[in-house]
Amino acid sequence: MSQEKNIQPSLDILLEFLRFPSISAQSAHAADVQACANWLAEKMRSLGFESRVEPTAGHPVVLARSTPDPSKRTVLFYGHYDVQPPDPLAEWQSAPFEPRIADGRVYARGSSDNKGQILAHILGSADLLAQKELPVNVVFLIEGEEEIGSPHLLPFLKDHKDYLACDALAISDTGMAADFFPTFTYATRGVACLEFRVTGPDKDLHSGIFGGAVANPVTAAARLVASLHDHEGRVAIEGFYDDVEPLADWEREAMRALPGGEEELLALAGVSEGFGEPGYTALERVGARPTAEVNGFGGGYQGEGSKTVLPKEAFVKLSFRLVAAQRAERILDLAEAHLRRHCPTGVQLEIQRGHSGEAYLMDPNSASGLAARRALKKVFGREPALLREGGTIPILEDFRSILGVSPLLLALANPDNQAHSPNENFPIRNFEAGIRLNQALLHELAS
Amino acid sequence: MSQEKNIQPSLDILLEFLRFPSISAQSAHAADVQACANWLAEKMRSLGFESRVEPTAGHPVVLARSTPDPSKRTVLFYGHYDVQPPDPLAEWQSAPFEPRIADGRVYARGSSDNKGQILAHILGSADLLAQKELPVNVVFLIEGEEEIGSPHLLPFLKDHKDYLACDALAISDTGMAADFFPTFTYATRGVACLEFRVTGPDKDLHSGIFGGAVANPVTAAARLVASLHDHEGRVAIEGFYDDVEPLADWEREAMRALPGGEEELLALAGVSEGFGEPGYTALERVGARPTAEVNGFGGGYQGEGSKTVLPKEAFVKLSFRLVAAQRAERILDLAEAHLRRHCPTGVQLEIQRGHSGEAYLMDPNSASGLAARRALKKVFGREPALLREGGTIPILEDFRSILGVSPLLLALANPDNQAHSPNENFPIRNFEAGIRLNQALLHELAS
Repeated sequence: MSQEKNIQPSLDILLEFLRFPSISAQSAHAADVQACANWLAEKMRSLGFESRVEPTAGHPVVLARSTPDPSKRTVLFYGHYDVQPPDPLAEWQSAPFEPRIADGRVYARGSSDNKGQILAHILGSADLLAQKELPVNVVFLIEGEEEIGSPHLLPFLKDHKDYLACDALAISDTGMAADFFPTFTYATRGVACLEFRVTGPDKDLHSGIFGGAVANPVTAAARLVASLHDHEGRVAIEGFYDDVEPLADWEREAMRALPGGEEELLALAGVSEGFGEPGYTALERVGARPTAEVNGFGGGYQGEGSKTVLPKEAFVKLSFRLVAAQRAERILDLAEAHLRRHCPTGVQLEIQRGHSGEAYLMDPNSASGLAARRALKKVFGREPALLREGGTIPILEDFRSILGVSPLLLALANPDNQAHSPNENFPIRNFEAGIRLNQALLHELAS
Repeated sequence: MSQEKNIQPSLDILLEFLRFPSISAQSAHAADVQACANWLAEKMRSLGFESRVEPTAGHPVVLARSTPDPSKRTVLFYGHYDVQPPDPLAEWQSAPFEPRIADGRVYARGSSDNKGQILAHILGSADLLAQKELPVNVVFLIEGEEEIGSPHLLPFLKDHKDYLACDALAISDTGMAADFFPTFTYATRGVACLEFRVTGPDKDLHSGIFGGAVANPVTAAARLVASLHDHEGRVAIEGFYDDVEPLADWEREAMRALPGGEEELLALAGVSEGFGEPGYTALERVGARPTAEVNGFGGGYQGEGSKTVLPKEAFVKLSFRLVAAQRAERILDLAEAHLRRHCPTGVQLEIQRGHSGEAYLMDPNSASGLAARRALKKVFGREPALLREGGTIPILEDFRSILGVSPLLLALANPDNQAHSPNENFPIRNFEAGIRLNQALLHELAS
């Protein structure tokens, strides 16, 4: 074990990793994504692993492993080297791809989600490998399309099933329940995205000459958005809640016992009051209830001052967060039917489905679940919190069905890490603990 | 009269006028607006008028006149040299400020609204002046803030009441009822603008980590927009229709008699079906009924692909078109009260009022109304249509109250001139007819 180790060399590798603007959603950054994959594979090779960059129909996957020893069990680690777009850029205190260290944290896009977390596992295993103390075979699967919904990972898993065969699978891409609080996540929400476009006139019109006689596509789009919820915040799409299972009493209990809680969640969001589905706490709403969220809305004049036009079109980007048993495809079917049924007359509606990923739920009291919880307790010195996570790791269900193991989710990201937001950061002590957690976990899973 | 005159020299002056990007709404173009005013005053001086550029608290006004002769009646012409922003730029077939002549039309931002129309009056009067045949004194008032609601014209009128004293006031800033169809407009709608901003979290949030527990400002803004109308298109703001006078039978008759009609209006809009307040024809909706229109809506991720954020804010730009007896200030009061009353919980609402201008209604059978209709008949060879115009000329009511004359509105712009839209244009024959109309009008008003 390496508690006493100087962190600086590890940190230097992290900073290098963070300088790649590996933004998978933006085609202009495709070369940066590729360069980041190449760098990562080369780095892992230099740390003693076999490694390679595997092309996909989209961004490449980095595969790496210790030299397989058939007498040992095998642990697979999954992570991603792609990141969210950094905008709004103006709100960053330093450039998102020029990492800055301040207050014991590394500030950069991707620092916690997911470069810092996956690198902790790489460096933990590399350290054991260098000391010839690796108690298991390790395999790393690090993809470049997680932030766009992992569109090519499922066929990749099928094509590389042998390489990826394992006895356990661990992932650190979730958030801690409180600052530096060990957290074992046993559920994540699914996601399903959809963009719709409302069109009307073939150009922006003078609102005086035509206004009143021609349907306004922005108004129509807004009416569609308004139709998605009732006034208290329940999703109003017909059938949306059909497959949602009620929360068990022990789960509500575990949620009440979580450190932090509603006040902390709202403070992190920067709001003075919560809002959401009646009958649930803020943590229950986030962890165990589905949502319909507008991610972006645009139409008409966006500039300074006023321009009295009747706009030709509007777009709305929607995403749904789903809970176990809800299936993304069915929710998109329901949403599409709802939008078509509620679309006002006088405009045209086009709907385009985006990425989706299923929700995940496993048993935290299974053998591998208990091993993971012991490793967390060993490193952090206290019983880990049991969490249902609001975010999505799209391919957990795929891992389970193809590889036959239930992914173990060991949070390393702090609640205030600003994932997906300006000023994303990762505390250096979380990075250090992550390196040790990797080693503790490998020892727990070896036997 | 100058029916036989070569139009080319006049056209050259128009093209020069159109090259100024005199966009009053955008502060980056302030110098262009000033340069355009300077050019215009200089041009009028070279045509034989006294002229000057008068500063205001905003963009300057160009004043010009023939040397006053106290034995003659005085006719004032009003117009504007500022233009709407040209975006969306991608939809122009040629650059908006590089005028292009094709199919007998001049294509450029401002070609019809209003540079081409006011220049026709200038050149008509200049021609008579050069021939020493001017039957009246002429005065020109050409402002640079019409497209942002003429915020400084009212004090300007008060300060220059003597210079602007007149027996009649003529304006060409309205549209013909059909292609090259003489049109006398006796009413315009008012306008009142308002922008509101809905804010929530202090940054864009991860829609997985926070979604469900925090109000979404884009959803809240959309719900507010949806609250502005009922599902059939009536404005749902409490008290909005209180001051709207019902249409008289003779007006509905005159509207039915108009050339063009609903089909042409919708074809010009590029839509296959109309939509609006039940119980009214498309022309009635545009000419004589008020509206609430969204001109722009923005919030959250606007780029390529998806970004699963819960946005921190949204803005909505609204404008209302009003009819005689509705007052802009009262409508904005009602709208503001409505928005505050309907704002969902969990978000903050900020409202900022923009420019406004009152509706206008005069008697088309008054002495000056009949003189204008005779001049139109003389130049175009047929009885002019009587029109209620859907657009706004903000200061018609101010002219009437301060100068004591009811503005005469003589349309020169074609229905398909694309004012405020990409590919704005002005037919050369309308420009020529405008020059002759100016001269016929001066003769009719001289006696």
